[in-house]
Parts: sequence; structure tokens; C-alpha cells
Amino acid sequence: MSDTASPAIKKKLSCAIVGATGVAGQQFVEGLQGHPWFTITHLFASERSAGKVYKEAAVWHGEGSHPADIADMVVLSTDDIEREAANIDIFFSALPSETAREIEGRCAAFKPVISTAAAYRYDDDVPILIPEVNADHALLIRKQKERGWKGFVVPGSNCTTVGLAIALKPVMDNFGIKRVIMTSLQALSGAGYPGVASMDILDNVIPYIGKEEEKVKKELVKIIPGTYLVGATCTRVHVRDGHTETVTVETEKPCTPESFMAAVVGFNKKCREQFGPLPSAPNETIVLADGVNRPQPRLDRNTHNGMATVVGRIRTEDVFPNSISFVLLSHNTKRGAALGEILTAEYLYKQGYIA
Amino acid sequence: MSDTASPAIKKKLSCAIVGATGVAGQQFVEGLQGHPWFTITHLFASERSAGKVYKEAAVWHGEGSHPADIADMVVLSTDDIEREAANIDIFFSALPSETAREIEGRCAAFKPVISTAAAYRYDDDVPILIPEVNADHALLIRKQKERGWKGFVVPGSNCTTVGLAIALKPVMDNFGIKRVIMTSLQALSGAGYPGVASMDILDNVIPYIGKEEEKVKKELVKIIPGTYLVGATCTRVHVRDGHTETVTVETEKPCTPESFMAAVVGFNKKCREQFGPLPSAPNETIVLADGVNRPQPRLDRNTHNGMATVVGRIRTEDVFPNSISFVLLSHNTKRGAALGEILTAEYLYKQGYIA
Amino acid sequence: MSDTASPAIKKKLSCAIVGATGVAGQQFVEGLQGHPWFTITHLFASERSAGKVYKEAAVWHGEGSHPADIADMVVLSTDDIEREAANIDIFFSALPSETAREIEGRCAAFKPVISTAAAYRYDDDVPILIPEVNADHALLIRKQKERGWKGFVVPGSNCTTVGLAIALKPVMDNFGIKRVIMTSLQALSGAGYPGVASMDILDNVIPYIGKEEEKVKKELVKIIPGTYLVGATCTRVHVRDGHTETVTVETEKPCTPESFMAAVVGFNKKCREQFGPLPSAPNETIVLADGVNRPQPRLDRNTHNGMATVVGRIRTEDVFPNSISFVLLSHNTKRGAALGEILTAEYLYKQGYIA
Amino acid sequence: MSDTASPAIKKKLSCAIVGATGVAGQQFVEGLQGHPWFTITHLFASERSAGKVYKEAAVWHGEGSHPADIADMVVLSTDDIEREAANIDIFFSALPSETAREIEGRCAAFKPVISTAAAYRYDDDVPILIPEVNADHALLIRKQKERGWKGFVVPGSNCTTVGLAIALKPVMDNFGIKRVIMTSLQALSGAGYPGVASMDILDNVIPYIGKEEEKVKKELVKIIPGTYLVGATCTRVHVRDGHTETVTVETEKPCTPESFMAAVVGFNKKCREQFGPLPSAPNETIVLADGVNRPQPRLDRNTHNGMATVVGRIRTEDVFPNSISFVLLSHNTKRGAALGEILTAEYLYKQGYIA
Repeated sequence: MSDTASPAIKKKLSCAIVGATGVAGQQFVEGLQGHPWFTITHLFASERSAGKVYKEAAVWHGEGSHPADIADMVVLSTDDIEREAANIDIFFSALPSETAREIEGRCAAFKPVISTAAAYRYDDDVPILIPEVNADHALLIRKQKERGWKGFVVPGSNCTTVGLAIALKPVMDNFGIKRVIMTSLQALSGAGYPGVASMDILDNVIPYIGKEEEKVKKELVKIIPGTYLVGATCTRVHVRDGHTETVTVETEKPCTPESFMAAVVGFNKKCREQFGPLPSAPNETIVLADGVNRPQPRLDRNTHNGMATVVGRIRTEDVFPNSISFVLLSHNTKRGAALGEILTAEYLYKQGYIA
Repeated sequence: MSDTASPAIKKKLSCAIVGATGVAGQQFVEGLQGHPWFTITHLFASERSAGKVYKEAAVWHGEGSHPADIADMVVLSTDDIEREAANIDIFFSALPSETAREIEGRCAAFKPVISTAAAYRYDDDVPILIPEVNADHALLIRKQKERGWKGFVVPGSNCTTVGLAIALKPVMDNFGIKRVIMTSLQALSGAGYPGVASMDILDNVIPYIGKEEEKVKKELVKIIPGTYLVGATCTRVHVRDGHTETVTVETEKPCTPESFMAAVVGFNKKCREQFGPLPSAPNETIVLADGVNRPQPRLDRNTHNGMATVVGRIRTEDVFPNSISFVLLSHNTKRGAALGEILTAEYLYKQGYIA
Repeated sequence: MSDTASPAIKKKLSCAIVGATGVAGQQFVEGLQGHPWFTITHLFASERSAGKVYKEAAVWHGEGSHPADIADMVVLSTDDIEREAANIDIFFSALPSETAREIEGRCAAFKPVISTAAAYRYDDDVPILIPEVNADHALLIRKQKERGWKGFVVPGSNCTTVGLAIALKPVMDNFGIKRVIMTSLQALSGAGYPGVASMDILDNVIPYIGKEEEKVKKELVKIIPGTYLVGATCTRVHVRDGHTETVTVETEKPCTPESFMAAVVGFNKKCREQFGPLPSAPNETIVLADGVNRPQPRLDRNTHNGMATVVGRIRTEDVFPNSISFVLLSHNTKRGAALGEILTAEYLYKQGYIA
Repeated sequence: MSDTASPAIKKKLSCAIVGATGVAGQQFVEGLQGHPWFTITHLFASERSAGKVYKEAAVWHGEGSHPADIADMVVLSTDDIEREAANIDIFFSALPSETAREIEGRCAAFKPVISTAAAYRYDDDVPILIPEVNADHALLIRKQKERGWKGFVVPGSNCTTVGLAIALKPVMDNFGIKRVIMTSLQALSGAGYPGVASMDILDNVIPYIGKEEEKVKKELVKIIPGTYLVGATCTRVHVRDGHTETVTVETEKPCTPESFMAAVVGFNKKCREQFGPLPSAPNETIVLADGVNRPQPRLDRNTHNGMATVVGRIRTEDVFPNSISFVLLSHNTKRGAALGEILTAEYLYKQGYIA
């Protein structure tokens, strides 16, 4: 991040994190440290945490401990949202699915809400926004006015969808997509905390993640219209962070590894032009992995601060008339959660959706 | 195993293990313990081990230690194969690929060789035999007489192919196969010992296994003719034993989960009739996993002594006009290596190929 | 186990498992399969499970699935204990600590209770019984009559104490013990299920287990009087089953590796004479590990069905005038829980404490 | 690191890395990136690598890939050491033990050698230097002139010794040390690459590391004279980086947790005064862990860039008349290897030993 990215920023926007004490909320706290445009001014959590200082309300799950400037901030109850809304420019929501719909709605009545929760993802007037893939879907936001909201809700996609959507975007644009078959090898952090029991995953693979496959299919076709023939098998493996996905795409037009890589280069260029000035945008949206046995989660997940989608093992197999196969890696708690939503907020701010 | 399976066996067949000191050789030693038809009479290994007793020549990789009755057997040099051949009924070969072609050929000049090595797999007169799938390919053995051999070589398939071939057999027979897309999550023991460095796989996935994907494709189409449209991505995960594979098959005819399961039941019945009396045959060739999140390597790999292929997550996705998707688990060092070859030897013996 | 061990057994004793649906309860279910003297006739659990058949009430945590003959047994409410007590010969309790004191007391009012719970461990009239170490403490049981109980409660020790007590017994008897310094590297299954979160232990060690060190000290001195100078550091490592402990003992008299090993041989002999006929007694109580880098949990934890304490790395360091150092391994969910308690029940039965 | 630490540095010292392509050598490459005083000008390796550019000679084991400014540097043969010595100010040696004695001697004939190898550690005229602990031992260097060397050799300690020595230093200075009993839970990276096989450590502990215990004892008493009663058990656990050690010290004088912590604070202050200006010195030499279950390798190993020794679980047990017990964590490939040696070089440079 660089302060010079936006010399025009006079005063940082006030950000509230809703659901601030959980793992996902902590990732927003971490991701907003030193942000050139945004500053955390409010932390909201459930009744149980309200009134405590943050370092006492939240057991810190990251390395080290609670960022110093947030550690002593008093956590507010979500009951106080309406009272505080006037002093807040953006709500970042890391709420669990049970409470997200109600509370995000209450926030959106006043201000923009950027969310990692699924509550509104499948509503017709709500875009699932990944700036590099479907920035134009931001137009949907206006329809949300009809709900009587002054603000709006923009959720990000599921952490398994985001890397897939990014990798498929240049395929769709250049070769067309007939069908996609994907197997994910997902990291433990995707299940939250405490999440997966150690006894369940030591020396093991769990070949099923509840509702994950349905989410991937439903979200992908909403983000990249036309991708309606999708097979997905989602598994959990013994990795802390970083979702690996093996992907085979049947394309409309011939696609070679070379032409796919060229398409990626073009896509990256376009992304850099359009989103490069955003503080959280990765240098390259898609990084072509170097080495026949890459990407690997431990080695590649932090590429460009965990915001890049790393793609390797690019090859064409003789399984379809036209196709391309590859393996991708996407950091599920960075690109796939808080950092991805921060990028979305940066984009919406620059486009004027957030005042 | 049950002694009563074959009351007619008067005298056990003398078995030699070639490459007896390595991990794969040890699995033959373990797998033949208490076998009702076969008994180990010879252990062959390289010059380095020859002349030592087995317990000193081989660092034991299994639980516990060297089986008591083999521990003090003197290891012979492979130079002595010709001299000893007259006293041997079957050679079980666990040789590394570098030496397998030459040494197995020298054994086959005299006697049957059942092998885990790939050296002869792709020769035209050599079947890759999985009894339940392509027992009829055993006829090819006769052609090997033209090499001037009194014996023959019958290799098993790669440990990643065997479970896939077994699971696809009832699909092919009942619904026809157009194309197959498979991702494997393979166990560490598949790489032998020392194999994968701990620093490479801790908190990681390695999305590439050298030559594995080519082997799967080449072997599958030889074992099940017609399966020539195959996409395969082979990965290594943090699991000790048991290869998991996610599979999507486009079928010629409509295939529902119910009709697939019925086909499996029929297949199991046929296998039981044909191979049931063989001591190493699993009770059910394919076990339908119980539970939405199964099969799992740690929980299911030892089903029927590691000889069953466990299949779960059976479903039809809307990705092809006709298709079936599932996850399978096969024990790579049991069904996929020594125990699988012992079953093949049992079959060939009952069919009269081994005298 | 062998049926011939006790030809005099006419009718198996009726056993009730209290807390039957949890992990510890399941280990009793597993451990009693095929037992020559004992048979499971009652399963008790909380209100939530009562009335369901076992396979529906308990998610099975072992390999495979619920033992066939227990799978369809109806789980009873602990409210029914008094009603059923007349038909029960032994209660095996696997209750969580919160409820153990009350419910075990209600059981003991009628019949013997053998327990893995800590509730009564530290009461003056209650022995913490490890037959090979302090069989004579069984006499304490008579004092429990003063509670007005027809039965009694005999708990086993904590899973970290049992292997330590066994390994120290021949040291105490032959060399005297001045002080003990122990570090444990404990398995995940010791924390129950779901227990340790995978995100907490992947690529990690947790150097603290709540109350564990206090328990070890308090129990050890009760089981082996005189061991009051004990230092203990209990850690959690990335191992599924099997607690490893590094131990240095300052002895009263000189102790060499040779004399320690001779003491172990003598101890084993005495144990075999005294406890050999018990179905669950290990062949050797202490197994001297073979190999400079043993015992190792994965390789050695199942020695003698997980009932042996495996001791290796025996050496004298120049840290005390007289001392012996070693590493021990004890299976925490077998010897350290259900199987250990079953052995205790066998002993008490043979001694006439259980009618 | 901060450039301002030493405003007087006009020209950076030329550093050669000997054994530059191995894992330990790569850690020097990584550790010297952006160093304010030192710059890498020479890379030496064996014949096999000589003549290649670094990125082709060395498979990179760190995150990301070879540092850009080193990637294309041509690796020299160790045969060229004498020819190049005039252009080199410091040799950093990461040689394997087999070759270290000969090659380091050839380097020392001309220039200072700071080494991670054990080759010279136990020679009488060679200090094992840990600046914060035994800076005064640097005086020994002068004796090395008697070897006819213009330079000298200063090795660091074994990676298991360094954290222990640091933690014991304030104990010795304030309370006196009678005896020490230590158990280490060591990381996989301590065994180099490929090092420990994944099949050996998955779901396992290896309770023995060849020669490690002897090294710890021999080195500790050389670094902190008087620590001759030491018991050590060294084990390997499933952790990538960071050695955990449980320590019990019998002290001469009474030592409470409070007085120990006060001693640490005093020690840190002294270290800061003496070594604070060195670029690689940690902010605090010993960090007192925050939380009852710390230090933990994954959470704490990178404290102060992996240069701090993190100490927690401080308590007095009733096992000795006077004693203190604690758990320490030290990053084995940072403080315990390259970064530790770089700190030593910085110290020797400031003291005028390196010109």
C-alpha cells in the first residue's frame, strides 16, 4: 500500500467492523492496519463482547497480538448501530450467517455495507462483486434504493469461488466457456475457528464441505453469466491457508496453453489499468506460477499479499475438442475474505458509490 | 483369509520376493504372512543386502518389526536367480523401475513373475491385470511364450489407476463411458521411502506427481478399452496411506445415482461369484460409503483389509447430458501394490497359469 | 484375549456403559467386543440420546462403524440407573467430569463402578488403581461401605499418569526414587472430541494442558507413595494417539541402564505371574523398545493391543549422583482409558470385589 | 534493520557465502538482503554448482524465489577461495560438516570466517559465540593467530543450544546454576533438506536426534562455564520451524518467577545497551511470553524477526530446594543459524575484529 496512490484523499473514511471479534472480523482489523484511505473508528459485536475493550473481547488468532491502536478500543453492541451510523462511512461486515441478514439490513438503511457473509448474495438486486471480474455489476446497487435503504449491501463471493472466477474470466472473454469441472482442496481456515477438529483431519482428507459446491455454482454463474455447466467437488485437506483448485474447462473456441497465458497477460494489463491505483489491488491479478509443481499453498499463498490468484500446471488434455486445464491457488482468508472486500470498498469509493 | 477356501491345496507354492528389502518388498512380506496357498521361500535383493539376514538387511517400515519367521532368512543376491529358479513357483517383484526390466526378464525366463513395477506394463503382449476388471486379458500371457520365456510377467497397474479402473468398470458395462475427469489426492506412501520430504508437505499440497497422469491415462485405456478421453490431475496431500480420487464421468446412456449403485451391487455379486474363493478377494469389491462425507482415508482405507475400493458422494451434476460423479478411495500400498498382486497371483494360479 | 483364560466363567457379567455415546464411552464399547468375561447389556447416556438406538445416538469416532451387535441397542437415560441396577454387574463410567460425581455415586449405591473420570480420584477412601502398580490399594474399597454404598467407585488414573507410574514402579522397588522430572508430548485424542482445533496444532506445539501437571503429581504420589518431588511439563503435539514422556529420575541407590533393564524384566515376570491370566493383561507390562530412536507413537502405540508401556532411550546422564533417564510411550485411549479400566475390572472380579 | 544504526558505515563489507546453494546457505542469502553494513559479493559452492548462475544452481527453499539481485550471480567453486580472498571481508560458512573443517581453514588463512558448522566448535582456541551471552569469549580469537591464520573461525552454537544458553544466562548471573534438565521438541527444518521423511514424522514424534544431546551439553558448558550438570532429551516433532524446550533449573540461590522475570528485564536492558546498535539485534533478547499456553512455535517463532528467545510457563515446582522451570522457543533457522551468525559478525566488526 502506498499513500501516494491517492494524493487527493484528505480525510480517511470512518470504517465500522461489524462482527469484529470473530476470526473474519479480526482479518478486517488486520487488513485495515495502515490503510491509506480507511480507518477503523467503530467495532461492533454481540452483547457478550459489548463494553469490553477489543483485546479483552477477542482472543487474537493471528500472529503476534491485537494491533496496538485497536487493542484498547471499546467494542460496541450491534444495538448501537443506528445511533452511530451518522459517524460511519462504511460498514465492513464479518457477521455469521445467522445474524447477517437482519443486522446488515439495519446498517444498509444508513450506509454502504461490504460483507463477507452470504446473507444477501443471492438476492436479485445484490451484486456479488469481484472488481476485476464483474465491476459493471456495481450498477445493481442502485436498485437497492427500492428497499428504502440510503446505503446498500455488497457481499463478496465465497472464498472458493473468487479464485475460480478470476481464473475463468480471461477464458470466458477470449475462448468462451462451455463447461467447467473443478475439484477444490481447501484450507482449514476456511471453516473458521474452532472449525475442523484436529482429530478429523490429521492423516486425512474430508471429501465434503456442506453447501460449498452449491455456493460455487450459484455464485459463479451470477458473477460470470454463461457458466451454468459446472461440476464441483469440494474437499478439505491438511493445509492452514490457501485453497487449491484443479480446473478443467471445455471452451467454445480452441485454447492452447500459450493462448491462455497470453489471455492472462492481457487480462492483467487491463486490471492494472483499471484497478492499479487501488491500494489493495495486487500487482498482477493472476500470477503464472513458475515451476512444474506449483502453485503450492505454503509457498505461493502470500503472493502479492495474498491478493493474487496463482495459476500453474497449464495444459491441454485430449478430453474435450477444445479445453484448457490448470491448477489455481487463492488465499481464502485474504483475497477470499477481508482483503478482497477491502479492495471492493476501494473500488466502490473511487466510483463514487461511497461518499 | 481362510484355510478352508481351498481344501485341495496340498503343498504351499514357493514364493520368491525380488527387491525384498525395500518398502514395496516389505509389503509383500507382510501380505504373505499366513497365506493359505503361498509361502515365502526366497528373498532376493541387491548386492548390498545379499548374505545378510533379512532383519539386518531391511529397516522395517511397518508397525512392529520384521515377521518372526522371515526375520532370520538370509537374503540372496539377484545374481542367484537362475540358480534358484527351479525351487521357486512364483516371483513377486517389487523392484525399482531402473532394474525391473532386466531382472524380471531373467526371472520370467523360468517362472511366472507378478510385479508392482512398471517395466513391462506397456508392452503389447503384457496385460495389466486387475482380476475383477479385465481377467480375460490373462490370455495375453500365452503370447509371451514368443519371447522364449517359460514363465511370464504380469504387472499390476499404478496405484492410482487400480481404484479408478475398478470404480469405472460397472459404469462402462452398464452405461458406457464417453469421458472421465479425475483429480487424485494421493498419499505419501505412494512415493516410497524416504519419498516426500516432510518440509515439502507440512501445511501444503503438491499439485504434481511426475509421470503419474500419463500412467493413469495409458493404463486405464489398456485395462478398460474405450476410456480414451481422460483428464487427470494428480496431487500429493498430507495423508500417509490411501489415495482419494474425485471422478466425473460422462456416460453414453443416462446414469442416476440409483442406477449406478444398482450397477455396483451387480458388479460386486459377479465378482463374488468369480473371485470369492480367492483368499485375498475383498468381501465386496466396491464398498458404497456410508455417510455424506465419506470415504475418508483414515477411516476407510483398511476396509476389507485394504482391498476394497470405497466409493461415496455419488451424485449427478448438470454438467453433461448424462453423467455420474463420485469420490473413491483405494489403499495404495495394499490394493494398489502387494496385496493386489497377491490376488492376481491367486487368480492366475486357480486358472492354471501358475503350476 | 482368549476364552480359555478362565474356563470357570459360566455366565458373562452384565456391563453397563454410562456416558456411552461420547468418545470415551465408545472406547469401552470397542474394548468390550468379544470379551470372554464381560458383555454389554446397558448403555446409558444423557436425555438427548436416551430412547435412540446407539448407532443413531452416537457419531462413531473409531475406524469402520458401530459394532454390529451394539448398533441397534437402545440407549437409556441415566435417570433409569436405579431401575436397572439389579440387572447390572459392573458400571463402566466414561462420564464427563461435570456429571460424574453425582451419577457415579448413584451407580455405586448399588454396584461397582469402574471409571475413567476424575470425580472421585482424590477422595481418601478411593484408590486410583493400576493393577500392576498398586493392586494392594484395592483394600481401600472396603472403606467406601461407610458411604452407605453397596457398590464402590474405582477410577483409573489420568492418561498421562498411568505410563509414568508403570515405568517408575520397578525404579521405586529396586532403586528408590528421590525426584522425577518429566515432560510429556501428548496426543490429540487425550483432549477428547472435538478437542483441539486443527488450526491450533497444525505446524505447532501447545506447551500447556490445563490442570494436567497438577493431576500427574497428585495421582503419582497417591499411586506410588514417596514420589512427592515431581516436576512435570505437559505439552500437546501433532500426534493422534499415544503419549510420549521424557523422564529423568534421581534414584536413592545407583541405577545403571543394565540394572534398570534387569529390574524391568523382573517386574514383568511378577506381573505375568500375578495378572497374566487376566484377558486384557499385556504379555509384557513394560516393553523395552528395540532401536535407538524408539519408542515412537505411530510405530509403538499398539504394542500388546495398546496395553504395554514401551520404554526406550534408557541411559544415565551425569546430572545426579544416581539417576536413570528414559522415554516412555503409553497409549492414552487404550491403556490410559477404557482398556486400562477393563483390566482393573478383571482384576477386581478375580479378587472377589465384583460378584 | 535500519540504515541509521551506523551512520559511519561508508562502504559495505564484501561478504562471501560458502556453501551458498544449500538450505543453510540460502538463509544467509535471505538474511543479508538489505543489510546496512554487509553485501554479498561472492557465492561459493561445490564443483557441481560452480559456473552456474545462482538461480539455476540452487533450488530455492524459502517462500517466493531467489532474491532478484543474487539470482543471476555466478556461483564460484570453493577451489577459487584463495584467488578471491583478497576481495572478501567476511566469509559466512554454511558448509556441511564433512567439508567444513578443511574449507573453513582455507578461508581463515586469509579472512574472518563466521560459521554455522560444528567443525571448529570444540577446539580450545575457538569461541562458540553468542554475543549476548559470552561476548568476552571473543578474546580467544587472538589465540588463533598461532595457527598461522590471518583470519579466524568463529562458529555459532548448535540451533538447540542457542536459546537455552540465552535463557540460562540471567539465571546463572543472578541465581547460580546447579543443574539443568531440558527436553527439546525440535522443528523439522533443523534436519536440513530433504531431512526428515514425511512418512517418519506424520502422526509421530521421533525421540532421538543423533549427537544432538552431546552437542548441547558440550556447547553449553563452553558458553556458560559452570553448567556441567545437564540432562538433555532431544526429540523431533511435527513443526516446520522453531525449537521448543522445556527447562528445569536447580539454582544455587532461591529463584521465584518474579525474581527470574526481573532478572530477564535486567538482562534485556544490558543487552540493549551493549548490542542495541547492531542491525540484527532483537529489540528484546528474551521476550516474556504473554499467555499461559505460550510460547508456541507457529505463533511466536518470528518474534523480533526470529531473533528473540521467547520464554513462558515460568514457575517454580517443588522438585528442588531452589529452582525455576520454564518453556522456551527459539527460531532454529534464524537465531539458531544464519541470522545469529550475522549478528555475531556485526558484533565482531564493531569490536574491530573484522576490518
